[in-house]
Amino acid sequence: MAKKLPKRSEDYSKWYNELVVRAGLAENSGVRGMMVIKPYGFAIWEKMQAQLDKMFKETGHQNAYFPLLIPKSYFAKEAEHVEGFAKEAAVVTHYRLRTTADGKGIEVDPTAKLEEELIIRPTSETIIWDTYRRWIQSYRDLPLLINQWANVMRWEMRTRLFLRTAEFLWQEGHTAHETREEAVEEAERMINVYADFARNFMAMPVIKGYKTPTERFAGAEETYTIEALMQDGKALQSGTSHFLGQNFAKAFDVKYLSREGKLEYVWATSWGVSTRLMGALVMTHSDDNGLVLPPKLAPIQTVIIPIFKTTEQRQAIDRKAGEIVERLRNKGISVKYDNSDNYKPGWKFNEYELKGVPVRLAIGPRDLVNQTVEVARRDKLTKEIVSMDGIENYVENLLRDIQQNLFERAQQYRNEHITKVDSFEEFKDVLENKGGFILAHWDGTSETEEKIKELTKATIRCIPMDMDTSEEGKDLLTGKPSKQRVLFAKAY
Amino acid sequence: MAKKLPKRSEDYSKWYNELVVRAGLAENSGVRGMMVIKPYGFAIWEKMQAQLDKMFKETGHQNAYFPLLIPKSYFAKEAEHVEGFAKEAAVVTHYRLRTTADGKGIEVDPTAKLEEELIIRPTSETIIWDTYRRWIQSYRDLPLLINQWANVMRWEMRTRLFLRTAEFLWQEGHTAHETREEAVEEAERMINVYADFARNFMAMPVIKGYKTPTERFAGAEETYTIEALMQDGKALQSGTSHFLGQNFAKAFDVKYLSREGKLEYVWATSWGVSTRLMGALVMTHSDDNGLVLPPKLAPIQTVIIPIFKTTEQRQAIDRKAGEIVERLRNKGISVKYDNSDNYKPGWKFNEYELKGVPVRLAIGPRDLVNQTVEVARRDKLTKEIVSMDGIENYVENLLRDIQQNLFERAQQYRNEHITKVDSFEEFKDVLENKGGFILAHWDGTSETEEKIKELTKATIRCIPMDMDTSEEGKDLLTGKPSKQRVLFAKAY
Repeated sequence: MAKKLPKRSEDYSKWYNELVVRAGLAENSGVRGMMVIKPYGFAIWEKMQAQLDKMFKETGHQNAYFPLLIPKSYFAKEAEHVEGFAKEAAVVTHYRLRTTADGKGIEVDPTAKLEEELIIRPTSETIIWDTYRRWIQSYRDLPLLINQWANVMRWEMRTRLFLRTAEFLWQEGHTAHETREEAVEEAERMINVYADFARNFMAMPVIKGYKTPTERFAGAEETYTIEALMQDGKALQSGTSHFLGQNFAKAFDVKYLSREGKLEYVWATSWGVSTRLMGALVMTHSDDNGLVLPPKLAPIQTVIIPIFKTTEQRQAIDRKAGEIVERLRNKGISVKYDNSDNYKPGWKFNEYELKGVPVRLAIGPRDLVNQTVEVARRDKLTKEIVSMDGIENYVENLLRDIQQNLFERAQQYRNEHITKVDSFEEFKDVLENKGGFILAHWDGTSETEEKIKELTKATIRCIPMDMDTSEEGKDLLTGKPSKQRVLFAKAY
Repeated sequence: MAKKLPKRSEDYSKWYNELVVRAGLAENSGVRGMMVIKPYGFAIWEKMQAQLDKMFKETGHQNAYFPLLIPKSYFAKEAEHVEGFAKEAAVVTHYRLRTTADGKGIEVDPTAKLEEELIIRPTSETIIWDTYRRWIQSYRDLPLLINQWANVMRWEMRTRLFLRTAEFLWQEGHTAHETREEAVEEAERMINVYADFARNFMAMPVIKGYKTPTERFAGAEETYTIEALMQDGKALQSGTSHFLGQNFAKAFDVKYLSREGKLEYVWATSWGVSTRLMGALVMTHSDDNGLVLPPKLAPIQTVIIPIFKTTEQRQAIDRKAGEIVERLRNKGISVKYDNSDNYKPGWKFNEYELKGVPVRLAIGPRDLVNQTVEVARRDKLTKEIVSMDGIENYVENLLRDIQQNLFERAQQYRNEHITKVDSFEEFKDVLENKGGFILAHWDGTSETEEKIKELTKATIRCIPMDMDTSEEGKDLLTGKPSKQRVLFAKAY
């Protein structure tokens, strides 16, 4: 029997790291800060991708692909952007290796030095706006609504599987518009798409809001975010959408002939979610027994395990299970029937619990006699005996119920961890002893924001959009007047 | 009206380059040798991906993701592999940029030099086998059947859109097996999957065969290939599958405990197709009017164009077209109704011809009276008047017919361009004046192969697997005895 996971209450961080590896989601590679996404983890990511891609297409976007490498000079064109992104970047300087003089190794060929260094994209605004200059002449070419699924690289010093890795997978939408209003509307539309996806597929409640200027994307005029709460009381930024104004159009000289016949700069947005969502998914629902997956993203929604001693028993169960598999598949439910005889049922129970399979059916010889199945649900770890007759409807409803329950459970936890706080002492106390989101007054200055971060490690996650937090009050730290509470938390 | 494409007969290469750009498939980026895949081109690639991915999963493979960057030392572990791949590679040497002393630019930070250089993957055998060492302990862990969709980079000096670019998109399967036989079977299975895909989806006939030792993948014991013939008489290698023996298992020390309780090296395969298939697709079917797409890969299978003078006419056509769109979509046919008034019908006809849309329906006021539609097929450039009644069935059959016709047309061309040749003079003559594949005797030595290449630029594309080419004969050049004809051609 495999050893147990660390408990969340004892070492949350260790629990997460071990769970990700042991459930088959990802592991560290031999290359510093870069992960291998394992088949089971990748299958979940594929389900996320498929759903997001559908939602992007339904909102009028098309996919395209832009180069991995970006000339250094492109970054220098947008002043804030270069500060934010060009610094911790992987730099390609040469394009050839050669055999060493002793004939035993290989080394960089100094004669194959690039005239200009190329940067592995940390994000693609620069190369894409360099392309848009060729694609956009008139208002007839607008809006341009494009998305790219790609790998990107940011040279992180401290990495954690999915949450912060040097290379990660993501999608980045890059759109171009005639007017400010249309671009703002697009940026808001996409943060809403992300919020819907988080809620309805990941079963993860999120708070939508605006980032403060300090926390904005480098080069954005407004950054919208969705913030989720993990079970250790820390927030996780799960997706962002940026209104970029005309910054990139100006940097890359992208103008269009307007309906009035004037040359105008184009308005832009960009928006992205990444494999970080995998970390969010794990930390929102899972427990000390392993992963807990919402049925809509589970690669295997139902596992069936036969319990037998003799070959005759197994064969009888095989026949019955085959029928049930068929009935479930006809409902569009993904099923695995695991009748391998390498492992005992108890081992399999633990294994599929670890992997977060939402529903487990067990069938033994007595079940054949009684025409019953033992049904276990992963979210509540409860079991019951159910008639085989109509089992496919039962499982279908159960999966729906699990999806709903996971969302409600996460929402309840989240709601219990939004605390209104009016003094700095209380702020520190809540941060330390309760965790979660804190709604508090802020005087609106970057100085105060920075000071609070220094003193407590908490940051302003967002200025909420759909909670009414406007009211007169006084800044937590400085006592200066404030008109709205903002959302603080320690964050990943 | 947009200017015409160059004619294939006048400048095939220019025709290809312009077509790829003007049909909206791809274009060169601002980064040397790297392309932008435009939305229409990417939509075709997505269709290819979806179909291939389905076929891989049906043959038991799962997707995963491995790091983009590979330490230099990994390449050095497999002697042939390093020769073949590490030389023309993009090398990451630094991980940070800094502001220049004058504050005006950015430069590589010399203090942020990597201890060991990292190579952008030209192919992933090394990093994957480094990972498999951790994943494989016993025969129970085998076979391991994994695929990755990824970008790769090879520093090509002369690049052409899709056919040869520094960065390209591909999939690479990497499998691990208990026995030689099983691995060989897998390598053959996958070349068959590629051949099926080429024939049944791309409508592209291919010849399957073995590569000669000289043309094998660096590190392979056997390379299987599918070779297609382009309209200019040149061959295009369209997919390869490699039996890698135990070479990578030995290089990365990957052993498994066998059923007999012994530690044995694992047997391996790898196989891949890339965005190069886009080039093959274009060059197999297209004509002087533009792209010709097989219906199964066309992002838009049918376009409907209204022909009207007045708003009333347009509204009447809109209503009728709306019904037809609905009926076609219910058949699973992708349709675009283009009633934009920016452009005249003639312009639209040309545009959708350029884009290779298989079927065009035109509806004018007279059609409304007669309850007819003008139906044009892109492959034959023919038109006919068809009753609106049952038009969805008509189009459905027509699409099937076009798919079939494209394959047959390409196959006929290909068959007409396989020439048996028995003397070197004739060989040169056919190469120069007719082109295509040449079946000729070869003495089996790399020296002769190399010599023929030097003299004629023709290479041995493969030793065919499913044509019977065994017969006694004499080598074309040396007159030495040969037991089988092999397939020569000039190639992309």
